[in-house]
Amino acid sequence: MVIVMAPGASDTDVDGVVTHIQAHGGQAFVSRGVMRTIVGVVGTEDVLETLDAAGLPGVVETMRITAPYKLVSAQNAGGAATRTTIRVGGVPIGPDTFTLIAGPCAVETPEQTLGAALMARRAGATLLRGGAYKPRTSPYAFQGLGEAGLRILAEIRDEVQLPIVTEVVDAADVDVVAEYADMLQIGTRNMQNFGLLQAVGRSGKPVMLKRGLTATYEEWLMAAEYIAQRGNLDIVLCERGVRSFEPAIRNMLDVSAVPMVQRLSHLPVIVDPSHAAGRRDLVVPLARAGIAAGADGVMVDVHPNPETALCDGAQALVGDVLDELAEAVATLPPLLGRTSAAHLAG
Amino acid sequence: MVIVMAPGASDTDVDGVVTHIQAHGGQAFVSRGVMRTIVGVVGTEDVLETLDAAGLPGVVETMRITAPYKLVSAQNAGGAATRTTIRVGGVPIGPDTFTLIAGPCAVETPEQTLGAALMARRAGATLLRGGAYKPRTSPYAFQGLGEAGLRILAEIRDEVQLPIVTEVVDAADVDVVAEYADMLQIGTRNMQNFGLLQAVGRSGKPVMLKRGLTATYEEWLMAAEYIAQRGNLDIVLCERGVRSFEPAIRNMLDVSAVPMVQRLSHLPVIVDPSHAAGRRDLVVPLARAGIAAGADGVMVDVHPNPETALCDGAQALVGDVLDELAEAVATLPPLLGRTSAAHLAG
Amino acid sequence: MVIVMAPGASDTDVDGVVTHIQAHGGQAFVSRGVMRTIVGVVGTEDVLETLDAAGLPGVVETMRITAPYKLVSAQNAGGAATRTTIRVGGVPIGPDTFTLIAGPCAVETPEQTLGAALMARRAGATLLRGGAYKPRTSPYAFQGLGEAGLRILAEIRDEVQLPIVTEVVDAADVDVVAEYADMLQIGTRNMQNFGLLQAVGRSGKPVMLKRGLTATYEEWLMAAEYIAQRGNLDIVLCERGVRSFEPAIRNMLDVSAVPMVQRLSHLPVIVDPSHAAGRRDLVVPLARAGIAAGADGVMVDVHPNPETALCDGAQALVGDVLDELAEAVATLPPLLGRTSAAHLAG
Amino acid sequence: MVIVMAPGASDTDVDGVVTHIQAHGGQAFVSRGVMRTIVGVVGTEDVLETLDAAGLPGVVETMRITAPYKLVSAQNAGGAATRTTIRVGGVPIGPDTFTLIAGPCAVETPEQTLGAALMARRAGATLLRGGAYKPRTSPYAFQGLGEAGLRILAEIRDEVQLPIVTEVVDAADVDVVAEYADMLQIGTRNMQNFGLLQAVGRSGKPVMLKRGLTATYEEWLMAAEYIAQRGNLDIVLCERGVRSFEPAIRNMLDVSAVPMVQRLSHLPVIVDPSHAAGRRDLVVPLARAGIAAGADGVMVDVHPNPETALCDGAQALVGDVLDELAEAVATLPPLLGRTSAAHLAG
Repeated sequence: MVIVMAPGASDTDVDGVVTHIQAHGGQAFVSRGVMRTIVGVVGTEDVLETLDAAGLPGVVETMRITAPYKLVSAQNAGGAATRTTIRVGGVPIGPDTFTLIAGPCAVETPEQTLGAALMARRAGATLLRGGAYKPRTSPYAFQGLGEAGLRILAEIRDEVQLPIVTEVVDAADVDVVAEYADMLQIGTRNMQNFGLLQAVGRSGKPVMLKRGLTATYEEWLMAAEYIAQRGNLDIVLCERGVRSFEPAIRNMLDVSAVPMVQRLSHLPVIVDPSHAAGRRDLVVPLARAGIAAGADGVMVDVHPNPETALCDGAQALVGDVLDELAEAVATLPPLLGRTSAAHLAG
Repeated sequence: MVIVMAPGASDTDVDGVVTHIQAHGGQAFVSRGVMRTIVGVVGTEDVLETLDAAGLPGVVETMRITAPYKLVSAQNAGGAATRTTIRVGGVPIGPDTFTLIAGPCAVETPEQTLGAALMARRAGATLLRGGAYKPRTSPYAFQGLGEAGLRILAEIRDEVQLPIVTEVVDAADVDVVAEYADMLQIGTRNMQNFGLLQAVGRSGKPVMLKRGLTATYEEWLMAAEYIAQRGNLDIVLCERGVRSFEPAIRNMLDVSAVPMVQRLSHLPVIVDPSHAAGRRDLVVPLARAGIAAGADGVMVDVHPNPETALCDGAQALVGDVLDELAEAVATLPPLLGRTSAAHLAG
Repeated sequence: MVIVMAPGASDTDVDGVVTHIQAHGGQAFVSRGVMRTIVGVVGTEDVLETLDAAGLPGVVETMRITAPYKLVSAQNAGGAATRTTIRVGGVPIGPDTFTLIAGPCAVETPEQTLGAALMARRAGATLLRGGAYKPRTSPYAFQGLGEAGLRILAEIRDEVQLPIVTEVVDAADVDVVAEYADMLQIGTRNMQNFGLLQAVGRSGKPVMLKRGLTATYEEWLMAAEYIAQRGNLDIVLCERGVRSFEPAIRNMLDVSAVPMVQRLSHLPVIVDPSHAAGRRDLVVPLARAGIAAGADGVMVDVHPNPETALCDGAQALVGDVLDELAEAVATLPPLLGRTSAAHLAG
Repeated sequence: MVIVMAPGASDTDVDGVVTHIQAHGGQAFVSRGVMRTIVGVVGTEDVLETLDAAGLPGVVETMRITAPYKLVSAQNAGGAATRTTIRVGGVPIGPDTFTLIAGPCAVETPEQTLGAALMARRAGATLLRGGAYKPRTSPYAFQGLGEAGLRILAEIRDEVQLPIVTEVVDAADVDVVAEYADMLQIGTRNMQNFGLLQAVGRSGKPVMLKRGLTATYEEWLMAAEYIAQRGNLDIVLCERGVRSFEPAIRNMLDVSAVPMVQRLSHLPVIVDPSHAAGRRDLVVPLARAGIAAGADGVMVDVHPNPETALCDGAQALVGDVLDELAEAVATLPPLLGRTSAAHLAG
């Protein structure tokens, strides 16, 4: 069961609901987002039937959710019509806008990061991505600059005025990453690292949750539920390609995930064509496909000198290809009734 | 090796090339399309090295092809820049246009087929699809009307003035289907039915070749090569979703296939979002994604009364959803530099 | 619904049942195997409810089958306890025995075929496999010797006294292949070539049906149902590996298929480790795994000179590796309560 | 590059090698196992060429490893012939023995754990498995007893005299779990949780590393390399089924993984048929298949009262089915030249 609080409900109202649930023998999970506060209730059939919370102060609605994920389910949002908009440092990601997120795969130097950030801004990006902690398949590959990378990102943010999205790979690092970042990213390999999900759920920062390599939609939403259950409803889902049998591509971008997950959940969904494709010449066609399928945003790698990149240079956009992406981002979303997030930041 | 003939090369020129190849100990495969005639050469390294066919009458160019598929390879077309345009009853499918193909999954009655054809035409379709021979997983399911269905299709073609695309499932039926149809379709389950591929290769009709359920790009192009090797280069490839681990969707539309196969081959590529999705509410987002990824056309199911359809009614477009598709087909392709095939037929 | 006839039921009895079904408005499909004759009934709920066939002469039992496949369902066999034994030229394949089938992937010459057949017999094989019609991904690869290959197989059969299993790839070839072969094989790529399935269903010969590359158990059994529906219940299912994401192996042998399909159907199930592995050093471990999982037989490629084989030489067993296989076939099945088919032929 | 130390090499010898490597500009990773100590070297081509470490005290051999995983590669073990044996509380897992690991999926109560442990021992198990920290797809599912569960496991170990294997899901928990456990298990969802891999690498305890849901063999071995790189070479790999398209089974046990990974790495490989199957009636056939494919051990779930289990009761063995497993474990490994680990513990 989920109890939806009114937009103006006070902390006292929320506490009252929690106390009421506990007095009836249930467990309460408060999840706060920019747009709504929701209280999830877990308990036996008896508890749920006798709860009768509809009349409590600040409560808008109570509803039984049949999906195994409760707090992130579209059922508690009145369906797709009221999907959620998340704000990251003032920049919206949601159903009415289109948000471009761009930046280097890995932060290497201040110069490279600034170069990439300027490229991102020129292409219409309103959020800057960049990795300081890099999960790599090989222990001998470049693992990122760690906190030094976070400091570079923060300096560039001040210079280019773009809020930053960066990955956190270990629960022990959540506090330090949250100090610098505007949005925390959970990578594909960590989608079911439940300790990490709970830690970012407690962090108070918006979270971007990438889909696991062969995660089903339900498993992906259950991972989001772990974050929401610890109090954080500001979650953006990111489709980045799934593992397939096809040897010619790195991953297979599952564009069906965009409309499907938007029907199942009220959370925004973006696509990452760079990591799906793994090669520059596929990024723009896949970005266009993601936008056309209804994605709320796109995240791409850019790099001023892809040939010397320490990580995934083959997929980083540069030059003409980046111009093509900028054009797609400018022209396609309006056809689908969206405003560019570029004009809405602040 | 592939020998490309000049647009105006005569049959005598082509015969001369074939004789020359055979005299040198090689095998020759002549493949004719609307836009070009190509002669494939198979032989030992010795044969290929001593062939020296560049100076023969009517020969434009000779080239070694490293891909295992020769006649359909992009290498013999000077790359993506000179991709092929196929014509079906005068309607183009190729890089400069965008072609909508629509119609009922299965032909049931003249009234239902006419109703669907009129819906198709109103939505902007320039080709009519419809199945008279249906390959079904169950031997107890409706297997199509057979030749009676072909006759209905032919009558409706005369009435609505749309050339027809219809599936052939058995080599023994190719002649009768080719009598009625403007384009022969090879279904997913038959992508490696090599006898059938060779039979449609000899038929002289344009062929639409659907991708197998987990066929790699290379296997798909090798299947096209079987058709081309029997003399027919008028082939359109159709991506229709691949089998995946995700239980919430019937098949996973692989939009990467569109730009990838357009790089590997000179043949047109379209997408079929209806059979990928298996449900009406996903068809338009997937159609948009396919168009945006660069497809040369889209094929969809329509039905005047989906709830009584004998085959795949759940995915047939109708009413508002069909209007949405029509709008996507009208607005997206021009953004990508394409003209609607509707204005070019004839 | 399925009507099971008594072992001694006469043709008149069967005709009586068919007439009775048709008189009640149903369709009847008679399917004959070595062990039983079954009549499938397709019709509306009304037809099935009023049929009342239990008392007709020769009828043992009538039962409603909930699986979409009727004639091949385990439900009509009283469960796994009464699984079917098929006989191929006198050699049994079924629950009480273990059958080794071996031979060359492709018939090349009489000498090579005889060499392979002698190797097969020494290793304990009681059936000889060999391909005269080869479905190949490339139109330029060796396509088999055709009827000349069948003649070689027939000669070698006389010489080594092993019944032969050989593939048929086109419905038009079924009659000629059935003239020579003791068992017809349907390959992976043709599992849903429904015209071919129906043709072998009418042939009166036992059929080996390989699983499609990503066919579900249900689709595989529906393909078997197509054969059974045309009158032929002597079908052996062959698991030969499925397509996967793992680049280090050609296909992934799905050993779960063996016990699962044995629960769903009364038909025998064997495994083909050679085509799954694609490399010699994996064949014996996979053969052992298949035997241990409960397979009713194993089919492997052998070749006297693998390095010169025209087809799949890399997976053909020879020398020590074949000896290892022979030992596995001799020692493992008795542990699982099976008798070697070698001692039961005739 | 990998430098193999002599069995009797002293710490001073190892330190000397490390100093030598660093003096030449390389990085050194010391990895210690029961059977060998290996020093991995990472550096530029120049460093590797000029290193010349073969003559240093205690060095047996230096070799260049072409695989991306170095310390766990079969290349540094002289091939499959010298595969490693790991010891867990005295119990061997390796090429000469066969080890059964059994116990409850989750520790629930002392009584349930004791019951399961006694069942395990009667079936021939020499190691006891049991989960105190359970990674669950749903945040609302039973998450394990935590340290209280570890204490139960430790008590039961004393009572039944079986060393214990238990999962650790968070790097922060490694110390406490290592205090109680004889072997640490890394679960499927955490195969690429690199912080956790490094933490167990530093723990000094043997590690069981389950394969990720669609991890390639190379990714799996790279995950093992993360553990080895932090100093720990006592690693056992566990195949537990991969995600597939087949809806009738939970996961598809990839038996090819056993011989393939044994060729690629010197580490032992076991299979977990319980989690692959997800249903009791498949566990024994799959266990037999794993043994026959050459696995060094099998791990299964048992439970005294499966119908009340808090986790995965449907797959827990009990009664006759457990007896069947015990028989398979007793009879199959000797056929393959293995001794039961039951007789070798101590």
